[in-house]
Amino acid sequence: MKKAAIIGGTGYGAIELIRLLQSHKEIEITKIISQSQAGEELSATYPHLNGIITKEMEALNTEELEKEIDILFLAAPAGVAKNIIPSFQDTSVQCIDLSGDFRLTSEEYKEWYGKEPASADVLEKAVFGLSDIFTEEIKSASIISNPGCFPTAALSALIPLIDGNKIQTEGIRIDAKTGISGAGKGLSEKAHFSSANENVVPYKIGQHQHIPEIERYASQFADNDVKVSFTTHLIPMTRGLLCTIYADLKSQETTASILDYLQEYYQEKSFVRILPEGHFPATKGVTGSNYCDIGAYVDERTNSIVIASAIDNLVKGAAGQAIHNANLMNGWDETMGLEFIPVFP
Amino acid sequence: MKKAAIIGGTGYGAIELIRLLQSHKEIEITKIISQSQAGEELSATYPHLNGIITKEMEALNTEELEKEIDILFLAAPAGVAKNIIPSFQDTSVQCIDLSGDFRLTSEEYKEWYGKEPASADVLEKAVFGLSDIFTEEIKSASIISNPGCFPTAALSALIPLIDGNKIQTEGIRIDAKTGISGAGKGLSEKAHFSSANENVVPYKIGQHQHIPEIERYASQFADNDVKVSFTTHLIPMTRGLLCTIYADLKSQETTASILDYLQEYYQEKSFVRILPEGHFPATKGVTGSNYCDIGAYVDERTNSIVIASAIDNLVKGAAGQAIHNANLMNGWDETMGLEFIPVFP
Amino acid sequence: MKKAAIIGGTGYGAIELIRLLQSHKEIEITKIISQSQAGEELSATYPHLNGIITKEMEALNTEELEKEIDILFLAAPAGVAKNIIPSFQDTSVQCIDLSGDFRLTSEEYKEWYGKEPASADVLEKAVFGLSDIFTEEIKSASIISNPGCFPTAALSALIPLIDGNKIQTEGIRIDAKTGISGAGKGLSEKAHFSSANENVVPYKIGQHQHIPEIERYASQFADNDVKVSFTTHLIPMTRGLLCTIYADLKSQETTASILDYLQEYYQEKSFVRILPEGHFPATKGVTGSNYCDIGAYVDERTNSIVIASAIDNLVKGAAGQAIHNANLMNGWDETMGLEFIPVFP
Amino acid sequence: MKKAAIIGGTGYGAIELIRLLQSHKEIEITKIISQSQAGEELSATYPHLNGIITKEMEALNTEELEKEIDILFLAAPAGVAKNIIPSFQDTSVQCIDLSGDFRLTSEEYKEWYGKEPASADVLEKAVFGLSDIFTEEIKSASIISNPGCFPTAALSALIPLIDGNKIQTEGIRIDAKTGISGAGKGLSEKAHFSSANENVVPYKIGQHQHIPEIERYASQFADNDVKVSFTTHLIPMTRGLLCTIYADLKSQETTASILDYLQEYYQEKSFVRILPEGHFPATKGVTGSNYCDIGAYVDERTNSIVIASAIDNLVKGAAGQAIHNANLMNGWDETMGLEFIPVFP
Repeated sequence: MKKAAIIGGTGYGAIELIRLLQSHKEIEITKIISQSQAGEELSATYPHLNGIITKEMEALNTEELEKEIDILFLAAPAGVAKNIIPSFQDTSVQCIDLSGDFRLTSEEYKEWYGKEPASADVLEKAVFGLSDIFTEEIKSASIISNPGCFPTAALSALIPLIDGNKIQTEGIRIDAKTGISGAGKGLSEKAHFSSANENVVPYKIGQHQHIPEIERYASQFADNDVKVSFTTHLIPMTRGLLCTIYADLKSQETTASILDYLQEYYQEKSFVRILPEGHFPATKGVTGSNYCDIGAYVDERTNSIVIASAIDNLVKGAAGQAIHNANLMNGWDETMGLEFIPVFP
Repeated sequence: MKKAAIIGGTGYGAIELIRLLQSHKEIEITKIISQSQAGEELSATYPHLNGIITKEMEALNTEELEKEIDILFLAAPAGVAKNIIPSFQDTSVQCIDLSGDFRLTSEEYKEWYGKEPASADVLEKAVFGLSDIFTEEIKSASIISNPGCFPTAALSALIPLIDGNKIQTEGIRIDAKTGISGAGKGLSEKAHFSSANENVVPYKIGQHQHIPEIERYASQFADNDVKVSFTTHLIPMTRGLLCTIYADLKSQETTASILDYLQEYYQEKSFVRILPEGHFPATKGVTGSNYCDIGAYVDERTNSIVIASAIDNLVKGAAGQAIHNANLMNGWDETMGLEFIPVFP
Repeated sequence: MKKAAIIGGTGYGAIELIRLLQSHKEIEITKIISQSQAGEELSATYPHLNGIITKEMEALNTEELEKEIDILFLAAPAGVAKNIIPSFQDTSVQCIDLSGDFRLTSEEYKEWYGKEPASADVLEKAVFGLSDIFTEEIKSASIISNPGCFPTAALSALIPLIDGNKIQTEGIRIDAKTGISGAGKGLSEKAHFSSANENVVPYKIGQHQHIPEIERYASQFADNDVKVSFTTHLIPMTRGLLCTIYADLKSQETTASILDYLQEYYQEKSFVRILPEGHFPATKGVTGSNYCDIGAYVDERTNSIVIASAIDNLVKGAAGQAIHNANLMNGWDETMGLEFIPVFP
Repeated sequence: MKKAAIIGGTGYGAIELIRLLQSHKEIEITKIISQSQAGEELSATYPHLNGIITKEMEALNTEELEKEIDILFLAAPAGVAKNIIPSFQDTSVQCIDLSGDFRLTSEEYKEWYGKEPASADVLEKAVFGLSDIFTEEIKSASIISNPGCFPTAALSALIPLIDGNKIQTEGIRIDAKTGISGAGKGLSEKAHFSSANENVVPYKIGQHQHIPEIERYASQFADNDVKVSFTTHLIPMTRGLLCTIYADLKSQETTASILDYLQEYYQEKSFVRILPEGHFPATKGVTGSNYCDIGAYVDERTNSIVIASAIDNLVKGAAGQAIHNANLMNGWDETMGLEFIPVFP
């Protein structure tokens, strides 16, 4: 068993890591780290863990961690991991960061996060952990920059189409819908039940920090810089994230030809499911699981394509993909600890 | 007081007409017509009307209706109104049809609804009741074809931009989200609570009968035939409908210049609210009311625009707009009986 | 038209008063008072009021208010009204307080609210505004203590049974379920969407400040002091409140005999609806309206009764009842401005 | 590995068995049986199983089953199992029935289910599978009658109090709240999203078929026949079930003394969690898991007790408890395959 620590113990990302790792055969959580709640039991904040996780949370002690653990999951807000991971870069500890600290170039990070970027040498080592696309790079990485929830869903649908030269890389529109857990554990007006329930509302149009993340990694498969129009919406549900993506086709395709292509593109991947013609992904079809479901429709009237991808934002969009990456880094079966059937209904 | 009858008494459209007309100063409902439930009280189906609406539903008797009523609201499924309205065309009865029977050309109707179209002469007389756009035509109409819920939201945002030559009419994408009441009163798997709750799913991509309706009326303001890519999503809430629309700009605009333009376009309309820069419409901001809220964002990075419009699908998207049209046809204040403040929270 | 001011302008109670008074024929709101947000427009906090309520909120100026208004609605948290109402006691201003400040005896208030009580002379003048029970007293009152949401539902069901000597006054159990708006506008963990959604949880068992309120007014109809066991639950919906009440019968009754009795008890009241045998109240059947729906079942197996009452917590449980009381105090039709049909679906 | 078949393949109970058994180390599902959909893939009905369960459903063939399987889970509606289980009574196949067919005496079954009861000899062999109470009996049973969802939650809270002589067995009131999945997969008005959402409503007051089930097994721990008043409510959420139970105490107790007693009563049980004083169970705290959380409050004002228990109706209230029973029958660790941490948020 490899020993793992989780930093950012009281956020939703950490809680989901704990839930999923419970049944992992090769990883055991030996430390849960929270600066603000060190000394407390996690069940004081999360009563559902009563009697299950009885470990006290600890303050961060880098030197101790280095010696005692094999894998470090960082599930803290942006701006934390970039100050911690450098201490581990010359150790054998595998670092998997769920924040945005290592996803962008230094310039982009400064612009979109408004913070000082990570040091260039560490940034360079970080591999973007989009498990089903950068599989090989991840296998040999020591630092993983786990993708954001929206980029995971958007890029899983977009990259194959760009890579296969199927779509125009100009004029791509991504309409994203996310459950409220995407706004995290912190209280806010937009996550207040009486405001969020029975409501759909766009937010951060054109200004979401996941825009440069999507563009950066999509561009790696294109001949030019890809720019996307990206709009997020809050949906009155807890979990789930759907991206509906609109693009112009480069050549004549049918729904069937696109689905065949996608099926082949992902045929060796365990967690991407290409739906049959006439079916579209539902977030409820992946709840609690690590699947990314993708459906497509070629609109011959307008020679354009609509492609939709659904994930559980806390699993495939965060903790599940982090574990998937840990599996790849350690040469284990990629599905280890992630064999959950979606919770339905 | 003018006397009104409602056909299709047990659907959500009829129920909402009844709710809204309760406080209308110039219209009283004298007959509620339901073929399938004639003789029953409405409260047997809708207990919330207990003690409020005690009238029994009646079977349709055209001759009697002609003599007794002034306004006929038809809130039956597609295929019913086209067989009823012709009997009233030479009378003084004002007909307002909430179904799709008079919205399309005969050819389009056959193709998208798969039914025989209304007779050509009656079809010709019908005016498309998009109240805030076709205001003048509605004032002198005797037959109103009340718009669909999606076209109401989509066209309210699109027509000003096309009319003012602001956007390219190619490559328009409409991403629509609707509450489950849009699926009506009939039981179905997609409207089953355990399936619909905690779920977002696209449906009828590229095949929704509201597509030709949007295209037909948008085209009237363009130099060419407008084609749109239109995708609808079911959202786990009861009421509310949001369209997020993506288009390319024709010339350089800013968010402020577009909002100013829209503000001016709608300045004399009571029910369209253009939101200030940085704000986007929330369906909860219009629940239970006849407002259509519109917000816009010009993405200078991609020279494109995102415009979003929110309505209550059962009010502005159906019964409220029907009453708005009745007000216009009769020369009353357009807000009569529709002065409801949105129900919040 | 009488002029009204609302104190506590940014809470849900005030917002609902504004919504409902919009269509009242005899009351116009001339001032909205908020100490914390004086000078701001209400729509800055509540965008759904954009273009509808454009009045700026003002700071409290008692002397000015005395001269300018006829009716004062106080919708502030507990502890505010008791310091304001005394200034108005020698004026002709009618005061209607929606907080708990005047509902209990001084001793009870100290014990359950942990604050200094209102001065005894003002407290004495306040009439408990349970509109359908204390109708006559309300008509001649100058200060109304508007009931809490739970007491409104609970007492509307209980008082007739106690008054008619139908039930044992020992062993009464009240199981209450409320939508999350009952927790108010303030952010809290229990009202955080991701915590509250898909969840039912009891809270404040045996410790809710509405317990002494229920007991005090129920006791007025009994020969002894009534004690109740009262448990509240948060339900994942925005509006609505249901009380399910369990009691032992004093003599032999059937469901029909109890329903007949209740029907007669409330026969002259506009807003209490006694449901027919076999039907039980649904919160959705009263949403947005001032109705209180009551159903009952006599369990002959255990010689006990189950009686359930449903209200909209923000209407009948707060703002609607306050307006009902204003109507009674002014000799207007009790339904004035409250003729709303429930919003369904 | 033992081989299992599931009868009633397309109901929620069967689907949950499939989800949970996926990770069970000693049970593999070799047959899924559905009379109505034999020959179809389960994913045609449940797209979330796409690519996971690819087995075709089969028609029932009793003789074949006898030879091929070790454990038979019956998850069909009432009236099916009683005709199937007799064929297996002389075989080594362990039968676990999730329906009501074997829970009541013949007389009770006739009265409450309105059907012919199971044959007396088979009925006699069936052991009531309330895992944490009848643990020893279950270990040596060959036919298990798995409890209903409400009785599971209600009896888990009640039996210890009756068994320990803590409460009066007269005047017990059980107020139950269930998520809509409790109404099953079948379409119905009460499970229609637009009707069920934003709604709480009592149903089947005094007439639910779980009443005699609760009374029968509670009575086994009492000196007399226990009668309960039992009311169920539909809550707008998918999963989760909460029972709030009211009873009079027999002697003086404090909240602490009751909680200590319960803690001790269940100390060797893995899936019952007694919450600390001041905490009450939330359905969200057990979602997706096999836990039953119990909290209590002694109201010294009325010498009564409020005890609340929360379960996931589809896990502990159905499939999870069935697997728990299979574990007990086979001498495996009782938590095998059920080690899921609740899904939160």
